[in-house]
Amino acid sequence: VRELLAQLPHESILYFGDTARVPYGSKSPETVRRYAREASDFLVSRDVKMVVFACNTATAHAFASVRDTLPVPSTGVIEPGARAAVEASRGKRVGVIGTAGTIASGAYDLAVRRLLPDARVYAQPCPLFVPLVEEGHVDTEPARLIAETYLHPLKEQDVDVLILGCTHYPLLRAMIARIMGPSVTLVDSAHETVRDVARILTEQNLLAGGTSKPAYQFIVSDSPLRFREIGGRFVDIIGEVEKVDVEGYNRAA
Amino acid sequence: VRELLAQLPHESILYFGDTARVPYGSKSPETVRRYAREASDFLVSRDVKMVVFACNTATAHAFASVRDTLPVPSTGVIEPGARAAVEASRGKRVGVIGTAGTIASGAYDLAVRRLLPDARVYAQPCPLFVPLVEEGHVDTEPARLIAETYLHPLKEQDVDVLILGCTHYPLLRAMIARIMGPSVTLVDSAHETVRDVARILTEQNLLAGGTSKPAYQFIVSDSPLRFREIGGRFVDIIGEVEKVDVEGYNRAA
Repeated sequence: VRELLAQLPHESILYFGDTARVPYGSKSPETVRRYAREASDFLVSRDVKMVVFACNTATAHAFASVRDTLPVPSTGVIEPGARAAVEASRGKRVGVIGTAGTIASGAYDLAVRRLLPDARVYAQPCPLFVPLVEEGHVDTEPARLIAETYLHPLKEQDVDVLILGCTHYPLLRAMIARIMGPSVTLVDSAHETVRDVARILTEQNLLAGGTSKPAYQFIVSDSPLRFREIGGRFVDIIGEVEKVDVEGYNRAA
Repeated sequence: VRELLAQLPHESILYFGDTARVPYGSKSPETVRRYAREASDFLVSRDVKMVVFACNTATAHAFASVRDTLPVPSTGVIEPGARAAVEASRGKRVGVIGTAGTIASGAYDLAVRRLLPDARVYAQPCPLFVPLVEEGHVDTEPARLIAETYLHPLKEQDVDVLILGCTHYPLLRAMIARIMGPSVTLVDSAHETVRDVARILTEQNLLAGGTSKPAYQFIVSDSPLRFREIGGRFVDIIGEVEKVDVEGYNRAA
């Protein structure tokens, strides 16, 4: 969302957060696939012109199977992130951190090596990073100790690029950068993903004109209270927050 | 479950874990209530003779409203835990730790002061304890640092009893005991809860006879794989695990 605001300031945004069922990071591929399908169907029912899977775990497990069922264009965050990493890498030694689900899926490995077949990809799940960020532990001593343990094997492998493969991780960027050292470029997929969005909207003649006044809607599946608190750490445009139950959405539709 | 096996070895157990939607700890009261109602209705549909809310957050938000809608007897973990704490307390200074939801509900405060009106209850949410336990951080340096921060205000208040108000916390018992010191009695509700179960089953003439061979069934809402791994840290009787989708269960029924 922050990157959309920066690169495409005229676009309206309808954001859905599945707060009644998160985190997705440790859930099975089938369950995440069902949740992502329900969320996409819900967004489509609200007449969006494009769907962005702005979650690495949902992209890893669900994008390939859900994208073709949608009547509007869509993009995920993994291919753009892999592209950014390949562009930034000189030594072709790419590290990637993410949730247990994203890492187990092998989606980044596949995406990186599709672009750069002789790249070496070193992947490390960091399951405690999401709860740490949500509890405000972005640069505390326990967060540092946990991060050092997670990142140690990637330092040992001498990666030259590290993909922050989860939307929460950019909030840990300063700490991760200090641990990895100045020779490692940190990559997050937000910038590249929104470049993709801009390209797709342009190609399909769907780009909002410079005179349109954008609207921002935030919708969650659980109570808006906690969402407002945590979401406020990422962007400051959250106004009214609506609650919608999307369970079994596609089955009911 | 461990305590049921110890105190009521002839009883069969049907365990349901809502792994597709956990954790409950940071979710809203309404959402947890809906989930608890779906889970209870599902268990009743499988012909259980009694329902135990073996989760503090579900008990705190949902037990009072769901219990009366069930056609079988039920019990939660908060009243038994409060009773055990009151029995163990000499100084009437009771500490309680739990999820954000359990603590915000004030359920332990209410339950303790109903039994001992002049007790002082000091409550502290420990939202990182569940993810730490699930990631195997039961006595590591970062877990200790986080626990010291959480427990510091309770030590300052000089509590003489500390209720472990979440079913994951007994796995952190040794660490918590060391931090609180030998003058603080740690209480978990499992033992008292199963004493309640035994009393209710006896009163209603529902107790399994000494000749019955107990059966154990484990049912989850997400893939059994991760459940088997984490559940194995608590008990060693987990055999076959069945997956059931209980979303919207009571609406469909």
